[in-house]
Amino acid sequence: MQWISKGNILIIGLGLMGGSYARALSRLGYHVTAIDTRRESIDYALANGLIREGSDTVSPELAEKADAVIFGLYPKRLVEWLRENQRLFRPGTRLTDVTGVKTAVVHEIQKLLREDLEFIAAHPMAGREVYGVENSDDGIFHGANYIVTPTEKNTPEAVEWCADLGRILGFRKVSVLSPEEHDRMIAFVSQLTHCIAVSLMTSSDDRHLVDYTGDSFRDLTRIARINDGMWSELFLMNRGPLLEQMDLFLKEFTELREMIAAEDAEGLRAKMRLSTERRAWFDV
Amino acid sequence: MQWISKGNILIIGLGLMGGSYARALSRLGYHVTAIDTRRESIDYALANGLIREGSDTVSPELAEKADAVIFGLYPKRLVEWLRENQRLFRPGTRLTDVTGVKTAVVHEIQKLLREDLEFIAAHPMAGREVYGVENSDDGIFHGANYIVTPTEKNTPEAVEWCADLGRILGFRKVSVLSPEEHDRMIAFVSQLTHCIAVSLMTSSDDRHLVDYTGDSFRDLTRIARINDGMWSELFLMNRGPLLEQMDLFLKEFTELREMIAAEDAEGLRAKMRLSTERRAWFDV
Repeated sequence: MQWISKGNILIIGLGLMGGSYARALSRLGYHVTAIDTRRESIDYALANGLIREGSDTVSPELAEKADAVIFGLYPKRLVEWLRENQRLFRPGTRLTDVTGVKTAVVHEIQKLLREDLEFIAAHPMAGREVYGVENSDDGIFHGANYIVTPTEKNTPEAVEWCADLGRILGFRKVSVLSPEEHDRMIAFVSQLTHCIAVSLMTSSDDRHLVDYTGDSFRDLTRIARINDGMWSELFLMNRGPLLEQMDLFLKEFTELREMIAAEDAEGLRAKMRLSTERRAWFDV
Repeated sequence: MQWISKGNILIIGLGLMGGSYARALSRLGYHVTAIDTRRESIDYALANGLIREGSDTVSPELAEKADAVIFGLYPKRLVEWLRENQRLFRPGTRLTDVTGVKTAVVHEIQKLLREDLEFIAAHPMAGREVYGVENSDDGIFHGANYIVTPTEKNTPEAVEWCADLGRILGFRKVSVLSPEEHDRMIAFVSQLTHCIAVSLMTSSDDRHLVDYTGDSFRDLTRIARINDGMWSELFLMNRGPLLEQMDLFLKEFTELREMIAAEDAEGLRAKMRLSTERRAWFDV
């Protein structure tokens, strides 16, 4: 199947992300179907034209019809689902996902998968602080990054196919990284920042502070409203790279603390100049 | 002088903040004058109608004419300036400032000040990541907080006068705190967040990461572009409360790190739920 042609796409797990994929792909003219255990999600998606068919049980019929399958499940559930149900897919069906950690997921799936199926992993780096298909919005893809994370088991055709999916969904930038490179990167730019925001919120219980917070504090803690089920799973599944980044941050933060304690104005200014210089890279 | 009447206001230190005060007060009809050692700042402000008169030296004439004086200087320079030049003001002149730390400044000034002058401190919690009168903009006051920080040496009239200044400048919320309460608050909501942003930027030199950063990372590090001269002075002058807040944050962050290392999913989820609940206070 080429994305340029009109195929039959099954989305398994119709939450915020699966729903946003469904919305975009239906508008592009694909025949989109979905499986989700939550009946309300299927009903909402049918009523709002996000999908043409749906089921709240694992429907052999929908699985059999699919040319491509997109998994919108949390990582552990994704692995379980495939173990239990992969027999339902036609030979040659292409599978991809949306999970935010890769090393712990990709190799396990590729090991358990039938020889005549191909799983090509991807991470759409988009999201909102709300959940569920009812809040889905493919506008979140515009301006965001999409990373394909192939292994040596993937074919060049599947990598290109998966990258094209990111392109037609409207992502600003589509990249290819190994699962390990991806996990190191995501530990720094996403997981570490969430750890910081959470720690900041839990380190003060002074409700009064709301009166005095400026934009910088609100910006820093916006992501402290966090889906605890999903993020605890992501943190633990990427624990090696995340601990490494947390330790690098702790080292820098502790150095800054020591400079303040020692009244080392020159050291502080050097850190701030370095920080200012590096941050400027991000504003180009 | 009442703010409702039209008085003569002298601004000493015409940078981003002093310039923004000048812009707002001139538009409101006050006779605004300024002293700044940088000739270009005075010329710019005169040419653009921010002030009616200005001088790049300490002008006894401008000081003598002022009904009220607003200091837009960094904290250390502010104390020095008053020590050297307070003799120039008329008895009864009211003085206020814009500095971001209070305990280390207010008591020292009130101790050295002539008996017939009154210094009432204030902190306009607004700013931009750019500097100088050329970037001044009183739009930054809208939506921002303004804190008056009186001591037992201040008169109720001066406190009210200073609060009214915040109101006519267009601040969203005007509050009164002791210098010590202010410094504890500012250590948490502003200085700690700047320390975090700086540490995050200095903890990785991978320029490549720019390609993958999402909004959360950009939000978190926007304030990592920092005026090293001003902020190192602010950090060191507020070092007691800042170190206390840094240690509370370090404790929380280290606890989170230990939970990840120990694969304590339940502990992580509890932290995240607490964080989510507290962050919701800020969205009301």
